[in-house]
Amino acid sequence: MIVHHYKDVEAIEMMKGVKKRVVIGEREGAPNFIMRIFDLEPGASTPLHDHSWEHEIFILESEGLVVRNSMGDEISVGEGDAIFVPSGEEHCLTNKGENVARFMCLIPAGAEQA
Amino acid sequence: MIVHHYKDVEAIEMMKGVKKRVVIGEREGAPNFIMRIFDLEPGASTPLHDHSWEHEIFILESEGLVVRNSMGDEISVGEGDAIFVPSGEEHCLTNKGENVARFMCLIPAGAEQA
Repeated sequence: MIVHHYKDVEAIEMMKGVKKRVVIGEREGAPNFIMRIFDLEPGASTPLHDHSWEHEIFILESEGLVVRNSMGDEISVGEGDAIFVPSGEEHCLTNKGENVARFMCLIPAGAEQA
Repeated sequence: MIVHHYKDVEAIEMMKGVKKRVVIGEREGAPNFIMRIFDLEPGASTPLHDHSWEHEIFILESEGLVVRNSMGDEISVGEGDAIFVPSGEEHCLTNKGENVARFMCLIPAGAEQA
């Protein structure tokens, strides 16, 4: 059993204003799925993209986070919201608030070189 | 894309003081792993057990939650702690606090008839 606080995991700056922590992943021996936590600075966005694997997302902190779906609609999401992004659906998350937004995003093991 | 608040998902009382919500699962079309959220009343505990699949756990709310490992050690865990329980390792979580504790626990799809 491994127990650690997510803030004790090194944060990697993926792009300007977007930090990723791989909280439970290959290093911990996770065989099937990977738990990551992302911090988005105000104004920052994850890339608008799609891919062949799903996301399971859970919002930990947010005042002004929006998720964009494949229709181009922006849906406001707050703490406690869960988002399922199926394989192949275009999506991105953007922080339109004034404070850091934080969310968990899980993917299948091996989907990314994370 | 599916967006919903975890509290809008029906809670099932698994045993006295233990409620489970399947937040992202078969109903949402999740192909590989299942996101559940558990509420533990003060004094309540999940069963001490082991199984052939892993858990990826994230603590959402806790004052007095402890996780028991296969050595019988009880480790205090609080908000923001992540726990990886590998396949085959005995474990349980017990709420020794005075308020409801809440944690996310993910499992591979098909591991339980959830």
